[in-house]
Amino acid sequence: MEKFNVKAYGTHAIEADLELLTIPRREATPNDVEIDILYCGVCHSDLHTARNDWGGTVYPAVPGHEIVGKVTKVGSAVTKFKVGDLAAVGCLVDSCRECEHCKNDLEQYCIPGFTGTYNSPDKHLGLQTYGGYSEKVVVAEHFVLKVPENLDLAATAPLLCAGITTWSPLRHWKVGKDSKVAVVGLGGLGHMAIKLAKGLGAHVTLFSRSPKKEKDAFALGADEVIISTDNAQMDTVKGKFDLIIDTVPYVHDVNHYIPSLSVSGTIVLVGYLGNLEPMLNTVPMILGRKSVAGSVIGGIAETQELLDFCGKHNITSDIEIIKMQDINEAYERMLKSDVRYRFVIDMASLKNE
Amino acid sequence: MEKFNVKAYGTHAIEADLELLTIPRREATPNDVEIDILYCGVCHSDLHTARNDWGGTVYPAVPGHEIVGKVTKVGSAVTKFKVGDLAAVGCLVDSCRECEHCKNDLEQYCIPGFTGTYNSPDKHLGLQTYGGYSEKVVVAEHFVLKVPENLDLAATAPLLCAGITTWSPLRHWKVGKDSKVAVVGLGGLGHMAIKLAKGLGAHVTLFSRSPKKEKDAFALGADEVIISTDNAQMDTVKGKFDLIIDTVPYVHDVNHYIPSLSVSGTIVLVGYLGNLEPMLNTVPMILGRKSVAGSVIGGIAETQELLDFCGKHNITSDIEIIKMQDINEAYERMLKSDVRYRFVIDMASLKNE
Repeated sequence: MEKFNVKAYGTHAIEADLELLTIPRREATPNDVEIDILYCGVCHSDLHTARNDWGGTVYPAVPGHEIVGKVTKVGSAVTKFKVGDLAAVGCLVDSCRECEHCKNDLEQYCIPGFTGTYNSPDKHLGLQTYGGYSEKVVVAEHFVLKVPENLDLAATAPLLCAGITTWSPLRHWKVGKDSKVAVVGLGGLGHMAIKLAKGLGAHVTLFSRSPKKEKDAFALGADEVIISTDNAQMDTVKGKFDLIIDTVPYVHDVNHYIPSLSVSGTIVLVGYLGNLEPMLNTVPMILGRKSVAGSVIGGIAETQELLDFCGKHNITSDIEIIKMQDINEAYERMLKSDVRYRFVIDMASLKNE
Repeated sequence: MEKFNVKAYGTHAIEADLELLTIPRREATPNDVEIDILYCGVCHSDLHTARNDWGGTVYPAVPGHEIVGKVTKVGSAVTKFKVGDLAAVGCLVDSCRECEHCKNDLEQYCIPGFTGTYNSPDKHLGLQTYGGYSEKVVVAEHFVLKVPENLDLAATAPLLCAGITTWSPLRHWKVGKDSKVAVVGLGGLGHMAIKLAKGLGAHVTLFSRSPKKEKDAFALGADEVIISTDNAQMDTVKGKFDLIIDTVPYVHDVNHYIPSLSVSGTIVLVGYLGNLEPMLNTVPMILGRKSVAGSVIGGIAETQELLDFCGKHNITSDIEIIKMQDINEAYERMLKSDVRYRFVIDMASLKNE
């Protein structure tokens, strides 16, 4: 298979910093779109993969799955894109396309497993996939998204992961104008959850451990902030929420939020992969028909729906633009939650290196 | 308030056997229905309450909330029942009737709390409520149910708790002809779950730890039995079920069943009140948008819907009829799961004592 080299940032080992690498990209096949990457968001998963926190990282690893750019080449069978179009790529670059979930636009739940934008087996070049911390990416048309022209391009990048991760549960649990939604945790995911739930017309509450986040939460569109360590405040929202989107990425007590769910309400975990500690108590769940659920990213059609919705409602992420060369420092700041609310890499910095 | 005495079986203390007691019943007020109890099912909750397993038992305690009988008196404002009608009473005899859940036919989730058929504060006589292990009961018309004439009356009694406890989640999670439902545990609740899911047209699987239950499960209507301790068998149902009804009343590993849920599937716990041990792992939940939920009994309208459905489909419980005087022995057998599948007390035995 024909290929060409591009500059990228990646890492050769768990404890190594990210540094300049050269990686191969395939020449566009008839169904492929070649994209010149303009911006790439920085997701917690990037850091977890670079440092092998979840196991399974194959080195060299090139993270990045919040990709926006311009089309520079299209294969002969491509119909939706032409050279010069804006385009985006999220967490998926392929799937089996044949299982029931793929056929139902739920590629994120592909039975044999989807091909992640990075650190998945690459069906074309036989290596692992390399992500968006690079000059260019070549992706099958089905997995390439259209970007509304009216949005700030850099601030659009985080919609591709932080956005869709919160959008998908909002849609699955049918959030709309009469809904009462709460968000736990105000980071990259949490700030998108507030904006999107608000965009859907819901009443939105932020649960926060710190009163310091109040001002930001209201500016993002929250109707209410509840300090979750204040029992008197927690009592005021007993039985209130149809849906709680819990974005907290570390172990925490989910039981604490169950009383604030309405009868038949759901708390959906989108940030924490691991054991629920302390143990979940079934009593308030049974006595209120409450659910604890999980959800991961979203399918391609749903991601396009999100981008179109954001275009219509002028919703983007709040971001801090960094240079590619600042990525290691950005990771350190992310670990301290020192970012409001998403780092986005300006890829001009890589091209000029 | 005028009252009269009836014979009952109850207990005066945690460690005491149930024995013959005399308890008061109110004279029917304008909205009340007085019922001569013909049969009363024996529920695990009866035993838990008699022995104060959940705390909060007020003695003397008279259990029983699977009540069927004949109307012997009606208040002047009663419109749905007349003397001689069949009638039934389940787990609820009152609620606030004003909160949003009561107004939406979800009295089981009444915000101030429903009045249980036994061991709840009695708004009329100022004592605790006394259940169906007695000659008669007097209940507000709204909480009295109509019984289809075609069903075996004794075998109808368990529908009032075991039936509605499994019916309500089947309906809430919209089980129908295309659904794949699994049931964990084959006891009073489990055997009703199989019959009702089958009645709704679903494909029904029983998870059992013992091959000994296979024959019974198929006789009850199950399409498939999976031995849950056999990993090869478990692998054959990976990703299969839209809904799993988990009726197991003791602590057990819910994680074990999550892989067999389909994407967007739910496992609903109806039997176990307590902490989920071992800890629930969010990974398979997130990677398949799966939910762990709880559900308790059902509302009055839904219980009537169940009884009407059972009348139409000729569904009742599989029972063993006992005398009131055998209740202590029956409790011991229940603790050993030595009942197929529900004890029902023939109340003639109490009247003749």
